[in-house]
Amino acid sequence: MSPVAVVGLGPGAADLCTPEVRRLLSDATDWVGYDTYLDLAVGIVAPGPEQTLHRSDNREEAARARAALDLAADGRDVVVVSSGDPGIFAMAAAVMEQLYEGGWPDVEVTVHPGVSAAQATAARAGAPLGHDFCVVSLSDNLKPWSIIERRLDAAASADFVLALYNPRSRARPDQFLRALEVIAAHRGDETPVVLGRDVGRPDESVRILTLRQLRQADEAEQVDMRTTVIVGSSTTRLLRDGAYTPRSYPA
Amino acid sequence: MSPVAVVGLGPGAADLCTPEVRRLLSDATDWVGYDTYLDLAVGIVAPGPEQTLHRSDNREEAARARAALDLAADGRDVVVVSSGDPGIFAMAAAVMEQLYEGGWPDVEVTVHPGVSAAQATAARAGAPLGHDFCVVSLSDNLKPWSIIERRLDAAASADFVLALYNPRSRARPDQFLRALEVIAAHRGDETPVVLGRDVGRPDESVRILTLRQLRQADEAEQVDMRTTVIVGSSTTRLLRDGAYTPRSYPA
Repeated sequence: MSPVAVVGLGPGAADLCTPEVRRLLSDATDWVGYDTYLDLAVGIVAPGPEQTLHRSDNREEAARARAALDLAADGRDVVVVSSGDPGIFAMAAAVMEQLYEGGWPDVEVTVHPGVSAAQATAARAGAPLGHDFCVVSLSDNLKPWSIIERRLDAAASADFVLALYNPRSRARPDQFLRALEVIAAHRGDETPVVLGRDVGRPDESVRILTLRQLRQADEAEQVDMRTTVIVGSSTTRLLRDGAYTPRSYPA
Repeated sequence: MSPVAVVGLGPGAADLCTPEVRRLLSDATDWVGYDTYLDLAVGIVAPGPEQTLHRSDNREEAARARAALDLAADGRDVVVVSSGDPGIFAMAAAVMEQLYEGGWPDVEVTVHPGVSAAQATAARAGAPLGHDFCVVSLSDNLKPWSIIERRLDAAASADFVLALYNPRSRARPDQFLRALEVIAAHRGDETPVVLGRDVGRPDESVRILTLRQLRQADEAEQVDMRTTVIVGSSTTRLLRDGAYTPRSYPA
């Protein structure tokens, strides 16, 4: 069977990309991915003349997945490139969706994990994910906003730490403040919030705010699609220039 | 300042350990960790005569963290070794708890992420974490069982995928079935469940069951502390010999 390997580069730094993914990039004949992520891959493994790069725009996941499966069916050795972990709001599910629809019986698909943006952000801040947590995408491109609010409400009411992906885009600038409002119904004003932007890349920034501060328009407006937002639980504490969530929970 | 680097090896295979963590292991004078995880580290980076290994039993996290901070305060270059990601139910929070209590003003602590057990298990199965998910430890050593049930109920009611750590130990063999009962109040019998045991190590196994099958005593009894359990949402589907959760959610 010809292979499609769906790989996660990690946050972007070569130092955070697993040897397994580097090897798959080196061995493949074709790299398929969103333009920005192929640029990251080129920074980690320099492609040689034996490698063809297939760049596509963001939001073309389904077409990209089909193109990768077609290349493998033609006998090529294909990697599909995601940043972070391909299994977390990335290309692994997009490829599986196409396989589920049918076709490509002779193509074998494997998934190769990477360090996610939430993990990289958490590590820079200390240990905000040190206890039970939820990971939620605030994008309503593929799910109704009502289910997003319901999940935020459920997770916040049960005092989970929350890692928010795709928190705020130009197409929906105000939903982020609404999401924070849902969370704030269950959280104190002083709850620590970690904002990681482009963590693991040259222009990385990590900021620690309180939930009250982030709910101010001038702070919220700085959050964009390249930011991962970690909202603490009731037990998350500031420490030095970061934050952590203790392993124990009061009875 | 003398450093303590809290590092995550990933699941155990050298191929899944980041170059950053390998470098920190190579450069450190002292490795501090649970016996089993130091064995994994030795399999990834062979320690030289310049390295001292400090092995401790499981459940001695607080004492281990203090020992690491004391070594660094004495001028040693220390790594604290976790498997998976040190920020997810591992040593990063344990070290931060000690720092929070006070002391060690001259010790600088950094955290270095790794691929978690949930990510490695998900990758082997396809993409079960492809949509919003929660990560919950079922251990009630450090938190009351009531908060665990409340979190499982909240997460299941809002149709999150659930990744369960520390699912079942000899000390609490029956709580796992109770946890599944709480989840099953919101999930169909045929919900796919992924069981990953020692994924990324030589004896790895990955099994796919339905929630109904896992609730049978003979299946549940095979689950132990080395197993990561991923319970699908209402949209998670079987595919080939794995499972995935689509990126889209019905309105």
